[in-house]
Order: sequence, then C-alpha cells, then structure tokens
Amino acid sequence: MGTTQLETVPEPKYWHLKTVLSEALDSEFAVGEILPNERDLAARFGVARATLRQALEQLELEGRLQRRRGVGTTVAPPRMGVAVESDRGSWPGAAGEAWQAVDCELTAAPAEVARVLELPADEPVHTIRRNRVSNGQPVAAELVYVPAASVPDLTAIDAPSGPARARAVLRELDRLSLEGQDRAVELGSARADDAKSLDRLPGAPVLVVTTRFFAAGRTAAVSVATYRADTCRLTFGDAGGVEIHHGPGRQAS
Amino acid sequence: MGTTQLETVPEPKYWHLKTVLSEALDSEFAVGEILPNERDLAARFGVARATLRQALEQLELEGRLQRRRGVGTTVAPPRMGVAVESDRGSWPGAAGEAWQAVDCELTAAPAEVARVLELPADEPVHTIRRNRVSNGQPVAAELVYVPAASVPDLTAIDAPSGPARARAVLRELDRLSLEGQDRAVELGSARADDAKSLDRLPGAPVLVVTTRFFAAGRTAAVSVATYRADTCRLTFGDAGGVEIHHGPGRQAS
Repeated sequence: MGTTQLETVPEPKYWHLKTVLSEALDSEFAVGEILPNERDLAARFGVARATLRQALEQLELEGRLQRRRGVGTTVAPPRMGVAVESDRGSWPGAAGEAWQAVDCELTAAPAEVARVLELPADEPVHTIRRNRVSNGQPVAAELVYVPAASVPDLTAIDAPSGPARARAVLRELDRLSLEGQDRAVELGSARADDAKSLDRLPGAPVLVVTTRFFAAGRTAAVSVATYRADTCRLTFGDAGGVEIHHGPGRQAS
Repeated sequence: MGTTQLETVPEPKYWHLKTVLSEALDSEFAVGEILPNERDLAARFGVARATLRQALEQLELEGRLQRRRGVGTTVAPPRMGVAVESDRGSWPGAAGEAWQAVDCELTAAPAEVARVLELPADEPVHTIRRNRVSNGQPVAAELVYVPAASVPDLTAIDAPSGPARARAVLRELDRLSLEGQDRAVELGSARADDAKSLDRLPGAPVLVVTTRFFAAGRTAAVSVATYRADTCRLTFGDAGGVEIHHGPGRQAS
C-alpha cells in the first residue's frame, strides 16, 4: 500500500459528480431549499439520469440531502449530535434522560435477545418501548427487554400496561445495583413499527445501538435503540460539539 | 402513540418478503452459500423482480447478505465485533493497537477538520493514514490529523515520509499528556481511497468514527476512521461478545 494510499484513485463518474454537487450545495443552496428536478440537474451537469440518481443517493447517505414524499429533494441541515449515555452507566429511565416510555408488554423476546439474556426463546419478558425526541424531531425508538427475574418484586396491581407500567418496571430495575454495561453500534434498517415512530419509511437506514446491562453477575436487561441515520450523529463522551457533519464524502473535497 | 406502538403496522410488500427471506436464510442456507438468481427467487416467492430487489437491498443493509462482483449474492457471516478504543482514552498508536500506519503526508486538512483544530483552512497538518485488519479482513481505514504545533520537536531528518514518518509523528504526539477525548459515530459513504483500503466500491455505506484528542486545553489531534458497515459492529466497553448480529430487521421475526 504505502504512499499509493494518499494518491488519487480513479473514481466512478457518479462519484466525481457527487463531489461537484456537494460543492454546489455549499455555494448555491440554503438548508431546506428544494433541489431542481432530476431532469434539469442531469442536463445542467451533462450526465445521465442514472448517474445523477447514484450521486443523489450518496449525498442522502451522507446526510447532505433529504428526500421527502410530496416535498422532493431538499438540502439537509447539519446532523444533530445525539448523546448516547456514557459507559460509566446508568439504568434506562434514570433521571434527566431524553427518553419517553410509551408502552410496556409482556412478550417473547427476539431469538438473539433471548440468547443474550440466557432465556428460552419463548419466555416472555417485559418489553418496554421508548421514544426519543431531540429539537422537536423524533431521533430514536428503543425496546428495552427486562426478564421477569430482574424485577421479582414487580406487582401487576397498579399499572398493568402502558407508560405507567413501563415506568414501574424501570423503577424496579433501578433497585438492582448496576455492575456495568457495554454497547454495540451497527447499521440496520428501520422496522415498520420503528419507522412509524421515527417518521421514516420501513427499511430506512438506521444506527442500531445494543446495550447490555449487567447486575448480580448476569445480563439483567438489554436495550435495542434505533437512531435515524440520516439526521443523527451519535456522540460519546462530550462529543456533542464535534463540528464534522457530513461523513467522509466531504473530507475528499 | 401509546399501545399502538406495539400493534402490527401495515408493512410494504418488500418488507414482508424481507422477513420471509430472512427466515429462509436461517433455515435453508449456510454462511457463504450463493443465493439463486433474482429471476428464480422472484418466481419462488411470487413477487416482482423490483420487489425482490428491494428486499435483497434491505438484507444487505442489515448485514445478512453480501453482493460481490463476479460471485453473486451470498449469505453473510455474522458481523464482527470491532472494539473502538474506550473513552478512558489513549493516543493513536498506543501499544497493542489494531491499527497499521501506512503513510504520512504534510497536507491541508479538510475544511471541517481544520475548523475543529482551529487552524486556517489551508494550513498543512501531518495527515497519517492507517488501516485496520481484523480476522484477516480489512475493517477500517483512518486518517489522523496532527497539527505541527502538537508535535513541535518532530524532526524531518530520519523519516521524511511513509510508515516510519507516521510512527515518528505518533511518538511525538504521545509525549503530550492526553486530557481527554470524545467521539462521534455517523453513517457515511466510502471515499474512493478508503474504499480501496476496505476492498469495497466507492460510496459503500460506512460507519464514520470521528475522535477529538484534547491536550493543553485544546484539540491536539483529530482522527476520522471509516469502518465497513456491512461486516462490522462497533463495540464500546467490552461489548465484543454482544451476540446480536443483524440489526432491528431480525428483531421483527
């Protein structure tokens, strides 16, 4: 590899177009402005519609453009820095958290979650749905899976279901001493129910954050949070202020 | 919202197909196995080619499938857990790191990096390219930007460029006392030069990890690391063992 790594590498046509478009967005368009239609853009840059479409998809992937039904393609605002709770760690539902509990059901966890919780696949667990809103926009949807064994003193009396039930489960969970947590971040696509909470179409790219919470020497709860990949930049530590918005595409320019 | 959140939400046809396909992958196909061609698959599931293609794209996004030129569409192995250095923090190049320095150039940083480093846009900085290999596969490419002011005692004599130069810059950087670091993770698309290191096509989805390193009350270095989104799950804390591979798509099944 050596120095060749930093030399120019031949780029496909749509990729060069993407760089040119990116510069045009910086110099000619304001955030929220609607782009000309594909035919006009293709004509202006002298490329085929298919090439243009590939370039637009890249810019959407990098958060530079937003496509909205009925609106068209608009210039996206910079991504929001959304803080992921630090690894020092606290239970879901800790005071001052950005999440809103919307529901709680006792239902079998997905196979891979059951595996992490070391439960039989069909064993029902408390499944809490929470949503997160930032700057008035939905940014994340989360399912928190809590085995019954983690909240033995939970009573069904006062709050059988709904947000009140969710809060009751999290209150019980909070009574355990949290020994640690770890976290994984990966690319995924929005499930239909998450997509609805996130105001996206099913299948939209999302960043999936899976957190394991440890207590009494085992995994006491698992959270699977789905963040909008188009509008969010997940921050760790106090990186909320990192001013690098547009992914590596911009770095080339 | 309330309980409706956990009720079934109408799903587009390709989404239902995706779920069916996902189950077929689990039950009928082995990792690395090549899928039948699109015509045969569309016929088997009684859907249009366009619908099938959408479902295959979703499964690729979730890391279930890999498309490789000349090979076709194969069943992907579970994503690798790739540990991102913890927020306790150490300088790039610390002992035992997974990164290989491949080059170092003195060149102007991208505008948004220069802004973070509080430098004029055209001021040259030491730009170190590093690659990361895991289980024999390229998983990440990184550029580390080090302002000359952060390594005042660096001499040009022994190692003017290349990997040796990169190591010399990192050695000098390591002499500063690291006061902290923060990190942001966002979706991006692979630049042509990164794509080459990652063995992907330009524009492939990547997870971009931007890290700021603080010393002497300012940002002493910035790293922009580009991880393959198809094969990698970024882990924080000791989450290397999280056994949830396939993003939220699987959770629905």
